[in-house]
This record gives sequence, structure tokens and C-alpha cells, in this order.
Amino acid sequence: MELPATLADFERAAAERLDKGPLGYYAGGAGDEITLRDNEEAWRRIAIRPRVMVDVSVVDPRTTLLGRSRSSPVIVAPTAFHRLADADGELATARAAASAGTLFCLSSLATTGVAEAAAAAPDSERWFQLYVFRDRAVSDAMVAAARENGFEAIVLTVDLPVLGIRERDVRSGFVIAETTAIPSVRAAKYEKALSMLEVGELIDPTLTWPDVERFADQSGLPVLVKGVLTAEDARLAAEHGAAGVVVSNHGGRQLDTVLSGADALPAVVDEVGGEIDVIVDGGIRRGTDVLKALALGARAVMVGRPILWGLAAGGQAGAQKVLELLLAEFDNALALAGVPAAAALDRASVQRAPWA
Amino acid sequence: MELPATLADFERAAAERLDKGPLGYYAGGAGDEITLRDNEEAWRRIAIRPRVMVDVSVVDPRTTLLGRSRSSPVIVAPTAFHRLADADGELATARAAASAGTLFCLSSLATTGVAEAAAAAPDSERWFQLYVFRDRAVSDAMVAAARENGFEAIVLTVDLPVLGIRERDVRSGFVIAETTAIPSVRAAKYEKALSMLEVGELIDPTLTWPDVERFADQSGLPVLVKGVLTAEDARLAAEHGAAGVVVSNHGGRQLDTVLSGADALPAVVDEVGGEIDVIVDGGIRRGTDVLKALALGARAVMVGRPILWGLAAGGQAGAQKVLELLLAEFDNALALAGVPAAAALDRASVQRAPWA
Amino acid sequence: MELPATLADFERAAAERLDKGPLGYYAGGAGDEITLRDNEEAWRRIAIRPRVMVDVSVVDPRTTLLGRSRSSPVIVAPTAFHRLADADGELATARAAASAGTLFCLSSLATTGVAEAAAAAPDSERWFQLYVFRDRAVSDAMVAAARENGFEAIVLTVDLPVLGIRERDVRSGFVIAETTAIPSVRAAKYEKALSMLEVGELIDPTLTWPDVERFADQSGLPVLVKGVLTAEDARLAAEHGAAGVVVSNHGGRQLDTVLSGADALPAVVDEVGGEIDVIVDGGIRRGTDVLKALALGARAVMVGRPILWGLAAGGQAGAQKVLELLLAEFDNALALAGVPAAAALDRASVQRAPWA
Amino acid sequence: MELPATLADFERAAAERLDKGPLGYYAGGAGDEITLRDNEEAWRRIAIRPRVMVDVSVVDPRTTLLGRSRSSPVIVAPTAFHRLADADGELATARAAASAGTLFCLSSLATTGVAEAAAAAPDSERWFQLYVFRDRAVSDAMVAAARENGFEAIVLTVDLPVLGIRERDVRSGFVIAETTAIPSVRAAKYEKALSMLEVGELIDPTLTWPDVERFADQSGLPVLVKGVLTAEDARLAAEHGAAGVVVSNHGGRQLDTVLSGADALPAVVDEVGGEIDVIVDGGIRRGTDVLKALALGARAVMVGRPILWGLAAGGQAGAQKVLELLLAEFDNALALAGVPAAAALDRASVQRAPWA
Repeated sequence: MELPATLADFERAAAERLDKGPLGYYAGGAGDEITLRDNEEAWRRIAIRPRVMVDVSVVDPRTTLLGRSRSSPVIVAPTAFHRLADADGELATARAAASAGTLFCLSSLATTGVAEAAAAAPDSERWFQLYVFRDRAVSDAMVAAARENGFEAIVLTVDLPVLGIRERDVRSGFVIAETTAIPSVRAAKYEKALSMLEVGELIDPTLTWPDVERFADQSGLPVLVKGVLTAEDARLAAEHGAAGVVVSNHGGRQLDTVLSGADALPAVVDEVGGEIDVIVDGGIRRGTDVLKALALGARAVMVGRPILWGLAAGGQAGAQKVLELLLAEFDNALALAGVPAAAALDRASVQRAPWA
Repeated sequence: MELPATLADFERAAAERLDKGPLGYYAGGAGDEITLRDNEEAWRRIAIRPRVMVDVSVVDPRTTLLGRSRSSPVIVAPTAFHRLADADGELATARAAASAGTLFCLSSLATTGVAEAAAAAPDSERWFQLYVFRDRAVSDAMVAAARENGFEAIVLTVDLPVLGIRERDVRSGFVIAETTAIPSVRAAKYEKALSMLEVGELIDPTLTWPDVERFADQSGLPVLVKGVLTAEDARLAAEHGAAGVVVSNHGGRQLDTVLSGADALPAVVDEVGGEIDVIVDGGIRRGTDVLKALALGARAVMVGRPILWGLAAGGQAGAQKVLELLLAEFDNALALAGVPAAAALDRASVQRAPWA
Repeated sequence: MELPATLADFERAAAERLDKGPLGYYAGGAGDEITLRDNEEAWRRIAIRPRVMVDVSVVDPRTTLLGRSRSSPVIVAPTAFHRLADADGELATARAAASAGTLFCLSSLATTGVAEAAAAAPDSERWFQLYVFRDRAVSDAMVAAARENGFEAIVLTVDLPVLGIRERDVRSGFVIAETTAIPSVRAAKYEKALSMLEVGELIDPTLTWPDVERFADQSGLPVLVKGVLTAEDARLAAEHGAAGVVVSNHGGRQLDTVLSGADALPAVVDEVGGEIDVIVDGGIRRGTDVLKALALGARAVMVGRPILWGLAAGGQAGAQKVLELLLAEFDNALALAGVPAAAALDRASVQRAPWA
Repeated sequence: MELPATLADFERAAAERLDKGPLGYYAGGAGDEITLRDNEEAWRRIAIRPRVMVDVSVVDPRTTLLGRSRSSPVIVAPTAFHRLADADGELATARAAASAGTLFCLSSLATTGVAEAAAAAPDSERWFQLYVFRDRAVSDAMVAAARENGFEAIVLTVDLPVLGIRERDVRSGFVIAETTAIPSVRAAKYEKALSMLEVGELIDPTLTWPDVERFADQSGLPVLVKGVLTAEDARLAAEHGAAGVVVSNHGGRQLDTVLSGADALPAVVDEVGGEIDVIVDGGIRRGTDVLKALALGARAVMVGRPILWGLAAGGQAGAQKVLELLLAEFDNALALAGVPAAAALDRASVQRAPWA
């Protein structure tokens, strides 16, 4: 099988292969999908100011996260239900990430267990994304499994106290048919096909900031708070012991018309960038987007849907090629922006685009 | 009959069911319909700044209007001729509003009488919208009937001293054929089919601010002035005894290229928000729009066309579902914006959208 | 024949009736037609701030020009070759303007003589637009004829020292076949079919500001300078004895990407509005546009292409209906903006549109 | 053969004649082609403020470059592989430029030798664009040949240390089949068909600012640095002995979302415009664009793709007509902007377009 040549081609190929329900679930967003679209547009509203006559014979894309050097600033974002895209599900994703040398963040709503995902790529760098279930025994068990299986950190998702309104799922009647394949959901004692609204109701809407410290203490792992869009919340995260924040609007799937990651990022960096790790996600589709995120002060980016398109269009090899294309573009962008070391990027490399 | 699943679907379904004349009358606006379109667009130019890690297990959508707590900030706007959309006309609307727990504002150009509309939903909260007719006996009688039939307030429309130029009606040749079904118009002694221009000529173009006090005195009811778009006029309304203002451009049907409600609202709130109730209408189609209106300082919003689409597509049940969808979206938006009590919304929740 | 119902309908009807050459000549602009399109768009970027509760039972559209009260602020702009649109040419236009009570400005490139045009509507208010020909005898004769035939003023066009680049004419091969029907051109001794480039070459490119005083002295008539887009040139016009300026970009037909009249107007008004008459043209298609022009400080507007669409679609009656529609819209806009006297309009009625 | 009438027509005609590979290579840009499109759009975001009543019977388009008067500010930009567009390749281009009286800048990736190109138009003004090859012997030999063959200056391209990501070439599988026809590449010892990535790898990515001085010393020719987009780099160029800079993003072919030449120009002029020559390229398609560039402080503009469209659509005559159309438009723009001498243009003639 010939793999698509670009990320946009992967998206088109995936759209042809996926059934309407899973495709709508993956591709869709909340409400009128204004934020969904803006997640990509917002990066295009940032222009690059390239410098020239810099020796770029060697480019160094490395970044530092949680005090540890990483081979690149690209992280596989936590997304649910990979077996809807590929029979091997998160096992394929884990292997693809490991082959590409990128961090993999496993979702609480994975269709494989925590231990199996770890075993699929034992030497990989991996984080675990946590939804806190109303039934705390379920989430406590997941955290324990994550720690035991070599996951370095907990990425606590805080922007889904209730599920967003996703009309594509309403129209398609999308349900998770084989709930037994989702260990976390099975553990929560659900046995039947679940709509996303029912999945959403498993999640605890009462979380507050002190829970961050509690999770960090209980797990013994650093906690990154995912879903922050304001400087105020970034400050609160830092005050409550978070090791980092992920500036994110949940892929435009929760509340429509909220800010994109790209637009929310600078204020968060200004507030806590000197203290904790700031990561951003949403709409990253090009190496230039990665460069812009880092220039604005993020230490890394998470990439979600493109990995799913890679899985759907080409399984493990597809996901790996998506990552490799993005990493190659990032190297190219570093060279052509005249900043060969990613760690040296700063705001001098970017400005508001005159065309925006 | 299966009802549509979203407000946009209701609009499409209504467009299929309605004849060209009534559809054009309901859907159309003045001139090039720039303001008509902008009424919806303007809300999309406002971004939400959501807060996280707030306990949102309970959301409270209540607001206070005319000193009284209301179960939600959504009000059914006064719109004319509901029997063009559904055989039960305003009776259906009144019942739908009552079932959804929302205030219903009956139009002077209703196709049912004031008493009948009240009787259709006797326990409902209801206001009466007033056009002041050249023949004052007609409007005086309507006000008297409103007071006698438990209407709490008069919503005095001030932005139709003459009718706007609505080219869809010119093209379709739209007339109100059964004028006898419009009690107010019948009372004004018209017996034949009327074009909207002829209806417009029934209305008194000489009203000035002292009339507000006069109507309040005569009726013994609080008067809300509907159709204000400037801080200057909001101040005059407050000085002349208005209990509130409705920031409105009459659904984009009067003067094209005037400001949208969304854009006119902040200056009005700044001027009189601390003294009288400020309500806004125009283009409210999403729970997020309601949230933005309240964050900008409105105490409530009026919703017009979507109710008509509900009536046309599903009668009373349709109108009710439209209201329920909007209310559910508003609850969801409160939770996801991290402000579970509507009354606590303020401008920290919104900003100019970077994509606008 | 049923006449179209709106100005946009007139434009469509005219486009169907005219041959490609004349249509392209009338409709087209310079270069990429950016300014052509922006002439209309620029008015849409201005929002109206309407006031309410003003007695608008009487609206007064009158303005003052050259010290004389005029029944409306709408003027028929000078445009060339009316016989391309209608067999009666400028005779029809002159009568239409007179019937509608508007000033008519006859073009130097009219397809009827100055005296005949005056005779067609002897009681009308009329101005004469002047191109200064290289052969000064031609233009001097026209000015003399204008004065003798009751034209009140000379409108000196200053933005055509050379002809703009109009690609529609290049593509269509447009020529003025019956040059003998153009008295001014005939007087200039041309006998053959002329391309617009050849017509342009008749015009003197050496004019400078002292010529304004010279023309005023020679003619004994007030001179309005048409084609000014900057405050600097408005000041020079005033210093050289102009009775007024027409802020104009020649209908987007001369230099592409210059400012629209709407955007150039405020600075000109600020500079000379207190001293001489300021008129604006370009893109006026709605009564609201007229209102905005006056609110920004113009005393009148010129309307060009819509008159040609009226002529082409319905001859004299068509041109008259176009004017009547525009005047009716202007009255409506005055009422709905809450400023019933046109002379009382000021900048409080307008603001930059939030949607622009 | 009838030649197209406008530059846009030339582009369409060329698109019909060229094969997909060469067309994509010529027309395409990097990434999502945002910068490619913006190169043209950016000029449209600048409005002209025309002055009137200036004697424009004589227009003078001359400029001064490298201390020498030039008949116009239009320069044929260096572009690769002209034999893909026309059998005579750069020989045709050189002759076309000479006939039009414009400077011709020959590319290092020309498909004719330096000496032959010079011989084709011996009296022409010509510059030589240099890519510095990893194999310095190749580029040194080209510089020597340029000097010997009457090229006045070296235009050192600095924005291609590595090749940009051009997806059109990836999709079309574009290769340079007859590498032997490219003297520079042949000299670099490549004998097989080359993809553009392979061509890119011939170029030295280690260049730094001291190389500018070295090239100037070695060649004895003035060096213009092409590919500067920031004031910082313009300052460094001046400090390292550059005779000028070309503000350029390489036709949108290197790093997507960088600034256009039009937007980068003012800061560069402010920084070094008083010291060295500033030239701009990218998206120049109209005489008005040339005028805007000069008004912003450029001394000249380079024009790339339109020349290729001219070659493809009409060979030498086509390229010449493209230049003549552009020069005629520039003369027209000078007259209609009221600044008949190009050398007198300054920022008073332009402003941010209100429509942008």
C-alpha cells in the first residue's frame, strides 16, 4: 500500500475509509464548529519572520519536558478509541510513536489496556491521560496501572466536566458498540452500547483545583493539567502543584467559540512559562505550526487528529509517516527560519500575520 | 412526526414547509440584509474565555427581570402573525413557552386576541408588546386587555415609526389576507387584505420620550422600551421611567446596516445597566450566544425567528423543542465556561474573537 | 413594460439588454476593479447608529448647494454616451431628473448637445461637467454653451489627465462608432470610430490648479472640482477658488486601488467642509448610503451607473424610477435613523461597522 | 500568433501550454501556499492616495540602482530553467529584457551558460544571481564568468540554505531531466535526472554574513543580498558590505507563512534605505504594485513568474509584451497618482487600504 504524501492527503484518505459515525466523532466539533476550524486557522494568522545567513547545516529539534530532554517537541495527543481507526488500535499508535521517537500520551478512553499499550512499545516515552470518573475506584486503578507500567506523568483533562454538544454525533447516532473493549468503561460497570453522552456522564463534574495536588500526591507522578485557556487558570494550576499545563480546547469538541490554543498560548506563557512546562494543542498540521508554538513559548505541541488519519489510512505505518512528515517539516522550518536549535526559538521569530 | 434535532435543522424544515410569502416575511430583512446576517455573525465575533476546575455539578440558569426571579434568561420575542406558521398560532406559542418555563411576549400583531393567548397558558409569565397605533383607541384597548389578562409588562416597540424597506415582501407581493384574524388590525377598522406597508401606516410616527411615562402611568404596568441601539437613547429611556430596554434592531427588518444587538449591547449596559433591566435580541441561535449576552451585561435575551421555525416545522411541540434545545445548550455553556450560575457571568468570560 | 422593483433588479435587467461593449464600458473599472468593487463595499463598512422616539411624521430631505436650497441631496452624475443605453440619450435623462426633482449634471461626452439637453427639461436644475480638451476652443465653446443654456455651474473633472487602463474595453474592442453623435468630439475634429484611448488623448494632461481660477473667471460660473481624494487637494481647490469639490475616483475607472469616495470623504470634509461644498460619489446604491454620506459631511451625492441601468432597462421612465426608489429609501432612512431633517445629520449617526 | 492582452491572460495561457510538472514547479509555493497567495494580496492591501491637477504630460519612470540611472524600476527576477517554458530559454528572456529596456538578472540555475546569455543581448544591463554551491569551485567559476561577461553585480540568494517543502513537486514527481542543459549543475558533477530536493542539496547551508564580504572582495562586483525579510538582517547586510538587499520570500517557495515582500519592505527601508539599494519582489503583477513599492521606498522591483508566463505563452515576444504591459501600466499609474517622476514617489502616495 502506498501511503499518502502529505497530512492533508492522509485526512482525505481517512475520510474515505472511515464509516460516518467514527468519522464524525473524530472530525467533528462542538456547536457550529467555529473553534474547530479556528484551531487550524489561528496558526495561519501568525507570520514567521525568518532570519538568513545562519549556518543551518545542523538543526536540533530537541526540547525539554519535565526536566528531561526530548528528541522533538511533538507529542501524540491523547485521543479515544483508536480501534475505530485501526484493528490494532493504541498498540499501533504506541509503536508508531516509538518508531518516530515521539512521546505518546495514552487516553483514559483507550481501546486497549494500560499495560498492553506499554508492552507494545516498552522503551517508548509515555504519559497517561486521565479522566476522573465519578466512580473514583476506576480512575484510581488506571493511575496505579499507569505508574506500574512506566508512564512518566499524568495528563489530567479538566475541560470535560460535562460533554460538549456535538451535532455530528447526534445526527449519526454514534455509539461505542463494544464497550468491553474499553477497559476504563468496562471497569465503570457499563456493559451496553454507549452514546458519547453516556460516556460523558461517567466523568466527575465536581473537580476543583485541590484535586490536582491530591492526584499528584496519590500517584507520585507529575501532573499536567490539560484544557487551560486562560492565564488565571494557568496560575491556579501552578499554585496547585501542576508540573505543566496543556493549553487546549479539546480539539474544538467541548465549547464552541472558545479561544484556540494558538491564541490562548501567549498569555499562559507570560503567566507561568518561567515556572512550569507549557504545552499547546489544537490545529497543529504543519512544521511551521510547531515552530510558531515554540516561538510563542510552548515547550511542545500535542497532535491528535492527524495521528488518527494516519491510523485510518495506513495503520501503524500511516501514523508513523504522519509523525515523520511533521518532524521533517519542523526541521525544514527551523532551517528556513534561521533558528537551527528549537530551544532558541523566541517571539522574535513570529508576528501577527498582515493577511489576518 | 420526528422533530428536527437542531435549531439549524428547524430552520431548514420550516423553509421547506412555508409558502414563499410568509417565509420571506419571516426570514427577510431590510435592504441588502447586511444587518440581518450580522445579527447572527456578531455573536460569533465574541470568543468565550472558559475557566476550568469549577464544580459544575449544578448549573443555575436563573436570572432576575423586573425584580422577579425567572427560571431562565430566554424570552420568546414578540413576532407577528403566528397563524401563518401554525394553525393554532400564538396559542401554540404560549403553551410551548409555558411548558419550557420561558417568558412569552405577545405581539400587538398577534393573530389571536390578548385574552385568548392568556387563557391558553394561564400560569405562564407573559408580557405584551405594543405598537402605538395612530388610532390610539386601538392601542389603549390592547393595553387594557393586557393588564386585565395578567400580562406583567408592556414592551413598547419604538423602532418602527415607519416600516423598513423589505424587498422580499415587495417581490413576493406578500399581504395579510385574513386581516380579521388580527384583532388589533381589525380594531383599527381595516377589512381588506393588507400589505405590510399598509400595516405600517397604522402605526403612529410621532411618538417621543414623554409617551413612555404616559404609557406607564396609564397602564399601571412597567414599560420596557424595545428598539434601542445607543447609550444616548438608553439614558433617555431610563430618564423617562422605562423599567428596561431591549437592545434590538427589530431582527434586521427596519434599517439596514444598523448595529447588531450584540455590538450595541455593551455601551447600553455601561450607561444604564446598573439602573434598569437590559435585554438584547437579534441573532441568538446558540446557548453560547445567550451566555455571551449575559456576560456582556444583559439580563435576558429574546428569541424570535427560531420560535417561528419551531412552529412551522412542528407546531407547539416544535416551538417547545426549540426552546428546550436552546436552554440545554445554555446549561451546557455555563458548565463548560466554568460559571455555573448565570447570574455570576461577567465580562471576564468573553473577549473579541481573534478570528473576527 | 413593467419596470424592475429595486436598483439591483435594474442592474440585472440592464446587463441583459446591453451589448457586451457598452455594458463593459459602463460596468467596468480600472485594473483588477478593486476600487470599483470597493466603492460599493465602503458604504457597507459604515454602520448607522439610529435614534428612536423622534417625531418623524415629516421628513425633510433638502440640502443646500452653491448657496441654494435643493429638494434632495441626490445628483445625477455626469456619465458619457447615454445614447448607448437609450435612443433618447441625455434627453431622457434630463427629463427623468427633472421629474424626480434632482439636479442633472451633463457630461462633456454627452451624445446630445448642450442646448438640446437644456431644452429637454428647461426648468430643471443643471450643471455641466467639463473635460478640458487639448484643443481649448472645443472646451471653451462648451462652457459658453453651458452658460448660455442655463447651466448653473461647471464640474471640472480633474482625475482624467490620461485614461485609466480598462481591460473590459480592451477585451471587447469597444469603440464609439458614431462619433458624430458626440458634439464635443465632433468639434474636436475627429470623424472616425474612436477607442476610449483615443477619446482620452483629446484631453489635456497639463492642467494645474491655476486653471481652476481661470475657468471660473472665464465662465462666470462657479466651478466644482471633481476627482479629489485627499485633504491636500481639497485645500488647494479651495485656495484656487473652487466653489466645491466632488470626492470621487471616477467610478473606479481610472486608477485601481485608490480610496473610495466613502473613505476619502471625512478627511476632505474636515479640511474644507466649513468653506466650500463637498459632494461625494462612487458606489451609492441605497438610501442608507446617501444618509451616511451626509452624516460624514457631504452636502450631496452623485449617482452614476444606476441611472444608466435605469435608462437601459426602461428609458426615461426607468431612470426616473431609479431616482425615485433612491429618494424614497433616503426618506425612509432619515425616519428610521431618527434624524428627520437631512440637514441635521452629523457624525453621531454613523460609526465604523463592527462587521467590517 | 496573437499574444494575450493582459498579465492575467498570459498566466492563463501559460497554464494551458505547460505540462503539469513544470507548471507546478513554476506556479507552486511552499506548504499551504499562504505566502504564495499573500505575495499578490499584500499589494492589494495598500491603497493609493492620488493627487490631481499636476502636469503629467511627461512621465519619468527612471530609477537609480548601484549609482546608475535605469530606464525603469522593473527588473527581470532570476528564475530557474527557462528552457522548460521556451526552447530558447534564457536567451529569449535576455533579448526580451533588452528590448524592453529592463535589467535582466540571470539565475545560477539557468539552462544556458553565463557567456551565451550575455552574448544573446550584449548591450543589455545584466546581473547574475548566485547560489553558493557546497562545491565552491562551481560557484566561483560562475562568478568569474559573470564578471568576464559584463554582469554588473552579484545577487546572492540567501533564503535557500535548504529547499522549501513544495508539495506540487512531490505530487507531480517533477525532475530536471536534462541536467546537462544546466551548466551549473553539470559543473557540480551531477549527471542524472535530479529532483528539486537533489538540486537543493547542492547548495551550501553554512553561509554566514562574512561570506558577503568575501564574495564582494573575490568578485570585484557589488553584491546584493536577496532574501531578506527583516530590518535586522538588512542592517547586517549593510554592515557586511552589501550594495543592496532584495526584500523577498523567494516567491513563496521556501517557508510558508513568512511575510510578503510588500509587508516586509517598510521596515527594511526604514533601517537601510538611506544607505544601500532596497529592491523588493513577490507578487508584482500591476503597474500600481510597482508604484506602491517605490512609494514605500524600494528603488526597484523584481518580477519573476509573469516573465515565465510570457515565455511559455509567446516566447521572447511574450516575455517582452509582459514587460511592456507592466511598464505601460506603471507610466499610467504615475500619471494618475499625480507623481509623474518615479524618483519623487514617497509614502504620501500610499496608505493601508480601508478594504483590507
